[in-house]
Amino acid sequence: MEGNHYILGVDIGGTSISVGAVPTGGGPVIGMRSMPTDAHEGGEFVFNRIVNMVRDILTDEAHREHFRQEDVIGIGLGSPGPLDRRMGVVFETINLGWSNFPLRDEIAEKLGLEAELDNDANAATLGEWWQGAARGFDHVLGVTIGTGIGGGIVLAGEVYHGASDVAAEFGHMTIDSAGRKCGCGNHGCLEAYASGPAIAARAVEGIEAGATSLMLGMVHGDLKLITAEKVFEAIIAGDRYANEVMLETARLLGVGLANLINILNPGIVVLSGGVTRAGDHLLVPLRKEIEQRAFVRASESCRVCIGELGDMAGVIGAAAIFHIARLGPL
Amino acid sequence: MEGNHYILGVDIGGTSISVGAVPTGGGPVIGMRSMPTDAHEGGEFVFNRIVNMVRDILTDEAHREHFRQEDVIGIGLGSPGPLDRRMGVVFETINLGWSNFPLRDEIAEKLGLEAELDNDANAATLGEWWQGAARGFDHVLGVTIGTGIGGGIVLAGEVYHGASDVAAEFGHMTIDSAGRKCGCGNHGCLEAYASGPAIAARAVEGIEAGATSLMLGMVHGDLKLITAEKVFEAIIAGDRYANEVMLETARLLGVGLANLINILNPGIVVLSGGVTRAGDHLLVPLRKEIEQRAFVRASESCRVCIGELGDMAGVIGAAAIFHIARLGPL
Repeated sequence: MEGNHYILGVDIGGTSISVGAVPTGGGPVIGMRSMPTDAHEGGEFVFNRIVNMVRDILTDEAHREHFRQEDVIGIGLGSPGPLDRRMGVVFETINLGWSNFPLRDEIAEKLGLEAELDNDANAATLGEWWQGAARGFDHVLGVTIGTGIGGGIVLAGEVYHGASDVAAEFGHMTIDSAGRKCGCGNHGCLEAYASGPAIAARAVEGIEAGATSLMLGMVHGDLKLITAEKVFEAIIAGDRYANEVMLETARLLGVGLANLINILNPGIVVLSGGVTRAGDHLLVPLRKEIEQRAFVRASESCRVCIGELGDMAGVIGAAAIFHIARLGPL
Repeated sequence: MEGNHYILGVDIGGTSISVGAVPTGGGPVIGMRSMPTDAHEGGEFVFNRIVNMVRDILTDEAHREHFRQEDVIGIGLGSPGPLDRRMGVVFETINLGWSNFPLRDEIAEKLGLEAELDNDANAATLGEWWQGAARGFDHVLGVTIGTGIGGGIVLAGEVYHGASDVAAEFGHMTIDSAGRKCGCGNHGCLEAYASGPAIAARAVEGIEAGATSLMLGMVHGDLKLITAEKVFEAIIAGDRYANEVMLETARLLGVGLANLINILNPGIVVLSGGVTRAGDHLLVPLRKEIEQRAFVRASESCRVCIGELGDMAGVIGAAAIFHIARLGPL
């Protein structure tokens, strides 16, 4: 190929959709934009929003100095799963209102561009490997800790998909076999302890049981308003109980990550998602728990850090998915 | 290479050492033999026993119709770890009395044959992939359940080693974060619930707490004599309590395997080791627990079965390690 070429990366989340033009050779993302998913409007609405966002970026005069429409060679899509990459079908995303939806081909047809599809957490992990915190690592785990806990495995620069495209469901690893009920129906899943809503739920339980906390005042006594975000705010304001909640979160997340480290012996674990905004309040006790639980040789050779790309990871990674499928390894 | 060539596979265990001559093109193992490790005699004794067993097979007139000494192109060694494959060094095997022992090069020098080293559970899993239950599968997990719980991951016909050769430590996955103390110092490891000694310990605890069981008579009242083996014998004799112990074992093992299936989405999980002698008493409730806990798409695409090669898996796999390192993929 002559000149600069671009792949459009599309990161489809339950809260927002992000799109950007990623140069095939790396380098800054052009025309990055995000919009709310507005999933409550239904599956067709979400699909049309993606289409319109892509058309916008293709025709936006502001980028003419960087690329013309004909420099865009394809679209990489990162979507919540479960999905089938080869068929390009999203099986079920209750949040987005899609069911057995041939997203890849519908997008390709509508926009007249080739497209590739993968799981959003896989894409984000691949993005951090290509241009973020995991550059140069051959054994990479990505863990997204937000409303849920998702994951991705990138080995030697390629997403590890497993036998039926559902690998890396880290959030539904049992860490307490008779523990908390999880949204998936099981008991004791990591997600039931360390996701954003789980952190909020544990904070509320403690306060209901009599713990003294600034959080009570922050929500004017309405415990339903306590979120993981509020827990972080309270920590920064010096609240001891909020700090305890975070230490417990770090401990439980550490159990899950130590398991992953003992099983997969990664060179790096990249954390992302809303909960990582707690920064060192989370990272310091988390690393301590991992050191205590994982094998010395495994934990010594594993970096645990927060991603460098933030919300761009999914966009860059979705473009990388297309690159690997159509142009070969990065 | 012209004619038939052979690789000697050596499987070094805490209880016994097995050696056999494996044809490079597959086919029946020649001259298979096992001896007790007699590890209490010390590291030098164990090393010399391996050397003598290899010399025996090389010079045994009984195999002359199959191979001459010059048809043997090298030795594959499967050893308990942790170890470093590239250096060929076993770091620490308390059982065998080795510490930072350059096993690969010492064996090679003593026997005048090239050698390769890998972890024993990795080798056994590779063996089941090459010639056993996992033939044709691209995503293979091996789980050895005996005195401890070990594991191996074989992807596209190659052992997955991770960043520092310590991947697949399945036995030290936490399934109950505040649970039973494990030999490794942690709490709640799978090995503390489902290994042979753990099964025996749980049986004894129940009997001490008043459970009625045939086992008490089988050991003439001496509870120290209860082993996992005795639990199986009692099940076969129709003992209800022994069956309960096995159901609980299957349940806890199922928690661990469901985790592995959600994380790695394997096409097959091959079980081996003494505890699998329980057969369907273990397998049936185990599969049920996995179905309940793992994602449907992951458990539906995963076979869970007992290995086909028994003690030969480690020998065949050790030879496969050498094959892959020196002759290329199988």
